[in-house]
Amino acid sequence: VGITLANPKHWTRTFLLSLVEYGFPGAIYPVNRGGGEIMGLKVWPSLADIPGDIDYVISLVPAGGSADLISHAAAKGVKAIHFCTAGFSEVDLAGGAAREEELVRLARSKGIRIIGPNCMGIYCPRTGLSFQPQFPREHGPVAMVSQSGGNAIDMITLASQRGVRFSKVVSYGNGADLNESDFLEYFARDPETSVIVLYIEGVKDGRRFRQALDKASRAKAVILLKGGLTESGTRAAAGHTGALAGQPLLWEALSRQINAIPVFSMAEAVDLMAAFQHGFLPPGRRVGLLGTGGGASVLIADTFERHGLVLPPLPPALKARLLEFSHLAGNILENPIDYSQTAWESDKLARAVRLVGEWDDIDSLLCFPRPGWQSPGSAALWAEILYTMLSAGKKADKPMAVLLEPGVTPAAAQQVFPLIEKSAQEGFTVFYSFADAARAIRRLVDWGARRHV
Amino acid sequence: VGITLANPKHWTRTFLLSLVEYGFPGAIYPVNRGGGEIMGLKVWPSLADIPGDIDYVISLVPAGGSADLISHAAAKGVKAIHFCTAGFSEVDLAGGAAREEELVRLARSKGIRIIGPNCMGIYCPRTGLSFQPQFPREHGPVAMVSQSGGNAIDMITLASQRGVRFSKVVSYGNGADLNESDFLEYFARDPETSVIVLYIEGVKDGRRFRQALDKASRAKAVILLKGGLTESGTRAAAGHTGALAGQPLLWEALSRQINAIPVFSMAEAVDLMAAFQHGFLPPGRRVGLLGTGGGASVLIADTFERHGLVLPPLPPALKARLLEFSHLAGNILENPIDYSQTAWESDKLARAVRLVGEWDDIDSLLCFPRPGWQSPGSAALWAEILYTMLSAGKKADKPMAVLLEPGVTPAAAQQVFPLIEKSAQEGFTVFYSFADAARAIRRLVDWGARRHV
Repeated sequence: VGITLANPKHWTRTFLLSLVEYGFPGAIYPVNRGGGEIMGLKVWPSLADIPGDIDYVISLVPAGGSADLISHAAAKGVKAIHFCTAGFSEVDLAGGAAREEELVRLARSKGIRIIGPNCMGIYCPRTGLSFQPQFPREHGPVAMVSQSGGNAIDMITLASQRGVRFSKVVSYGNGADLNESDFLEYFARDPETSVIVLYIEGVKDGRRFRQALDKASRAKAVILLKGGLTESGTRAAAGHTGALAGQPLLWEALSRQINAIPVFSMAEAVDLMAAFQHGFLPPGRRVGLLGTGGGASVLIADTFERHGLVLPPLPPALKARLLEFSHLAGNILENPIDYSQTAWESDKLARAVRLVGEWDDIDSLLCFPRPGWQSPGSAALWAEILYTMLSAGKKADKPMAVLLEPGVTPAAAQQVFPLIEKSAQEGFTVFYSFADAARAIRRLVDWGARRHV
Repeated sequence: VGITLANPKHWTRTFLLSLVEYGFPGAIYPVNRGGGEIMGLKVWPSLADIPGDIDYVISLVPAGGSADLISHAAAKGVKAIHFCTAGFSEVDLAGGAAREEELVRLARSKGIRIIGPNCMGIYCPRTGLSFQPQFPREHGPVAMVSQSGGNAIDMITLASQRGVRFSKVVSYGNGADLNESDFLEYFARDPETSVIVLYIEGVKDGRRFRQALDKASRAKAVILLKGGLTESGTRAAAGHTGALAGQPLLWEALSRQINAIPVFSMAEAVDLMAAFQHGFLPPGRRVGLLGTGGGASVLIADTFERHGLVLPPLPPALKARLLEFSHLAGNILENPIDYSQTAWESDKLARAVRLVGEWDDIDSLLCFPRPGWQSPGSAALWAEILYTMLSAGKKADKPMAVLLEPGVTPAAAQQVFPLIEKSAQEGFTVFYSFADAARAIRRLVDWGARRHV
């Protein structure tokens, strides 16, 4: 593996740092004309000086030096180069598009495949390849194909803290040689992957992509975040990855005909990744809700119903059973159940969650303990409430998720992030807001319904 | 002020604690049959034992003891009682509604007004009255009328950290005597209030409320969060405050005819409170965006346009001026401007913000620095970027707001909350997500347009 390092303070240092800190097990050869030593590794003046063959090159040379790099790499038997380098088709006015075409032509003539240019490359936990040092070491069922390196990092970061683990992620930028269809076709066949997340700005070959998407969606869950659906988004995408984006109607038709799950933000994509990772797959629209907060219960009910979900009324018999051991005043024994006055008593809370979990009229259960909000709850007390919900929820025969809001106050962030981590470790999907939860559940239900047609 | 304290570990202790810690300047008389001392104050066995007159009573006696309390209070010249007590019309099956009617009849016969029952009462910074110890001491232009005490606390908490300050807040629960229309009429006339936030579950007198809302909306900005718009929300509201909610069509018609700003969540209400507090009032739909992140720029553009906002393309002349001192590769000089590669150089960032601030084609400017996301940025570096944006933004002749995402990672929360506080202190409106920002700007523009018809 060869790496060029110009300015040692430049952010691109993160590539070498990632390999070293993440613990890539193979040989790493930093390359820079200046030579010397870095992070305990000898810096080689050029690819030619490295003894033996090289499999893969991560290139940071400027756009102008990329052609030379390909020739040197070919001489060392390199099979693929990841060009982080920007300055190609995304800056067309400076002749970038022509430079990019020339690069691909040259690489193909030498039998070398290109990832990029203008991207972050590959994260593959199994082989120890990563483009950020802090990405999780464990692998999992989710693959990601992202035209944007920044969005890939953001989604991996968000998803990781919710317990999502990845098989492979590729940030492919301008996609000059290997493009979105190549990666999608690969992941559709990849036995390590059961969920595919796509962040796409523009597609090189519409017909091929459509076929690849159709095939992948029949075999696996595919989450599709399309960037550049609007006029200004298209302009931004052109400047970002040189993509010819746009055509919102075409994309809308595509997601109607193919059972991929369309989302409009990274947060929405992450909600679904978490649900698939933890197997939170509600078979229908009927939801049971249990948590704390009267006003919150009113708003959560409105939010869920506005997203097309159904909150069946609590049957009198179930209400009566709850009343055998729960307070009347201060609780609301409807659906949502506001259990504020009794949630502090763990044995009763566990019984309530189990009773609701056995309720036949619902397809899934969402608990909203709401730590971090109001003063009476200490961190320990909220943790106790959450753990009680989780352990009772494990015994429920309904898929259960939890709602935890980390971004509301500084105190909430401190209290809630550890609880999110704990929930994820216990195998639960966590949503960060009422609307996020409702939107995700609705999408999962719709996806499941179309899948079984 | 009289307070009854039964169980010293009960959460209702928060009422006395709030008065003491918040620093209520008048005399506070805790009342409990047991007597003794609490928080350095003598506990009086009954209202009758307190020397002299009492203005205001905060009652925690159980529903059954409320009638007696009114009689005792009348003997002491009390003018108003806030009944925190639950167990009235919200639990109708237990005879609560009849008990509530009786309570009001008795109070009126004695010339006493009731706030509640089943509520948190009054927060009024000027007079030192508060129902949470940590609420801000400073007063401001925003009044809130909330049927839910929990939602009032949540909204005050969220809004405070964004720099919003309140004239008066009333949580009025079941509204048995004084109700939403009384408070709305009061705030429409209150010279200390220019923005009114309503969280309403049910309305006692539709015609009166409609008139009060119309009048208030002509004089002031009115933000309306209606709880119980759906079937299940209505059931929750009935169990929460005994409200007869529902009738979504009626509410939709109401907000079309009256220029109140309808919102669907507490977070949305808070976004608008912050905008009014800081005078972020875009006169039109055209927005200029400047921040860091290429993929983020694509998605922010899509989000804004999907919410009906307009992102005019960057004029060639402005682009040329930016290019005089900004990098080409790695930045995107469109609208949004992705300034990732140059944002670290403060003087250039300041020039860029000023140039965009002078751009005639936009009505407002939103900066999205995105601290807390990716590894290269240290906290100090991000703070520098934000402060540069804020000080350049102050000189811009366009309303400017900033986007900061506190809830994305634990590290982000630690970095971002102090930056949110700083931005608010400097008089800037902060939004927490792309979608939140777009939704709020759209609502502000629509509200302003209807206001000037």
